[in-house]
Amino acid sequence: MNEKGFIAQLREMVTHPAARGLLDDAALLEVGGARLIITHDMLVEGVHFLPDDPAESVAWKLLAVNLSDLAAKGVRPAGAVMAYTLVGQTALAETGWDAAFVTGLGAALAHFGVPLIGGDTVLGTERSLGMTLIGEAIGPVPSRAGAVEGDALFVTGTIGDAGIGLALARAGRSEPEALLEAYRRPQPQLAAGKRLAPKVSAMMDVSDGLLIDVLRMTEASGVSAIIDLDAVPLSAAALSESGEGRATRLAAATAGDDYQLLFTSSLPLPPLPCPVTRIGQIARGAGVHVHDRDGAVPLPAQLGWLHGS
Amino acid sequence: MNEKGFIAQLREMVTHPAARGLLDDAALLEVGGARLIITHDMLVEGVHFLPDDPAESVAWKLLAVNLSDLAAKGVRPAGAVMAYTLVGQTALAETGWDAAFVTGLGAALAHFGVPLIGGDTVLGTERSLGMTLIGEAIGPVPSRAGAVEGDALFVTGTIGDAGIGLALARAGRSEPEALLEAYRRPQPQLAAGKRLAPKVSAMMDVSDGLLIDVLRMTEASGVSAIIDLDAVPLSAAALSESGEGRATRLAAATAGDDYQLLFTSSLPLPPLPCPVTRIGQIARGAGVHVHDRDGAVPLPAQLGWLHGS
Repeated sequence: MNEKGFIAQLREMVTHPAARGLLDDAALLEVGGARLIITHDMLVEGVHFLPDDPAESVAWKLLAVNLSDLAAKGVRPAGAVMAYTLVGQTALAETGWDAAFVTGLGAALAHFGVPLIGGDTVLGTERSLGMTLIGEAIGPVPSRAGAVEGDALFVTGTIGDAGIGLALARAGRSEPEALLEAYRRPQPQLAAGKRLAPKVSAMMDVSDGLLIDVLRMTEASGVSAIIDLDAVPLSAAALSESGEGRATRLAAATAGDDYQLLFTSSLPLPPLPCPVTRIGQIARGAGVHVHDRDGAVPLPAQLGWLHGS
Repeated sequence: MNEKGFIAQLREMVTHPAARGLLDDAALLEVGGARLIITHDMLVEGVHFLPDDPAESVAWKLLAVNLSDLAAKGVRPAGAVMAYTLVGQTALAETGWDAAFVTGLGAALAHFGVPLIGGDTVLGTERSLGMTLIGEAIGPVPSRAGAVEGDALFVTGTIGDAGIGLALARAGRSEPEALLEAYRRPQPQLAAGKRLAPKVSAMMDVSDGLLIDVLRMTEASGVSAIIDLDAVPLSAAALSESGEGRATRLAAATAGDDYQLLFTSSLPLPPLPCPVTRIGQIARGAGVHVHDRDGAVPLPAQLGWLHGS
């Protein structure tokens, strides 16, 4: 059974509205009058991070990718619960990986103001890290399913930096630092998400690749999306590294690990603490349609990063 | 770094009162006026379950061990979030392990009335399962730290069945079924926990072994415990399998996986839906002191099951 089949089977038994059909970034659970937003994301060595990624940055990433899910729902976390697998104890005592991880986690939690309130530590053979974040929703909580025909499609920040950063890390390169940092220390758009939540029709974070995440939003909303590839925001560092062109832009739009916000709206946007770019619009029908200055862009077979599946 | 050292390092950076110093079965977090009880326990193949344990029973156990933490706090869960590692996809497609797991999980969730509201599925090489449960506290939430001199020490149900069941499973035996079921399908004492919570001075669940868990309670409370080993409740099936005697009783009291409630009280107990046995009392000082009809019982080097560490 592959990941898709497994999740499909799980979905069959999920009927509680809090789960949002397991189709959203986070669950929305009402408990004792409070509206809780709950997310859990895992990082596995060799799948979601490289064995020689610095432990401090893996800790940052574990918190940041979960924060990004809450950012997409417009909320801040009230607490974090960590699931940690300790491996190869003798070797670890030598390298200090786990100690460095805890140091990095402490710094990341302090940076974002999130308390660690519990968790579990187990012994295993594979370094696997998980985190549950719990936050409280005050205002509206956007889902992936609200995009309607005529909405404009936006993305925050720049796209594709982390994908290049991962390639650089794999090649053992240590610069450009901005691209490596984009891969190792993603910046969840918490402040932007909070301001955007009341103004969007749909919102999610870009974790697996812009195109596949746009496709998921259109599927959840029952609409199609038309994307101008030339409008997809690339950083100066990415363009300098990869050069301008359709191939560069398609690579950026399918690379994943961006942790930017993808959203649709027909309202004026509030002032945001980060760049925001209109990359297309929502239309009737289904699917994602991409064009650039040279016309229609055939879609690659893989629209995003499917974590090895 | 071993498990104990890792947790000690984590504990240094945990200052939020919700965490209870990472010394309790669950965190107590106030969000939006609601008092949330949050727990996360993991099961790793080869550490917490056997490769040939039926997948349905592993799913039951994943839910049950987490429910047991909530039972010790007197609350029922409002929702579950699962972290699942899919391994060896080709082999799995053949054995149907994951499909059987989902079926078993669905049955267990339905049995206990817990909705699955979210989670994450990743690909890996080691079958590792985690679950976060979130519940709401209505009344008092007992901690491990409230035991005082003069309190009586109690335990629900019987102790040691799961330990024998694990040994039977390892030996490939299929009976006595009651002992194998105690290992594979622990029954969290949710109803008893709810009734006991207002009446106890300290409460926790017995997960790693009666003696080590009593020791943890005494350390958290700053007291000592005196245990009558002859009073520790053993099932007829356990006595029939292992025979009466000090060795049997010490094995039962250090085996783990019981998922019974351990608590202290000086009040009359409410009617309970399960057997409850007074096994000793709380005194001044520190440590756990065990005796039986033949006098003082020297403590074994290992007071419980430390998950391979």
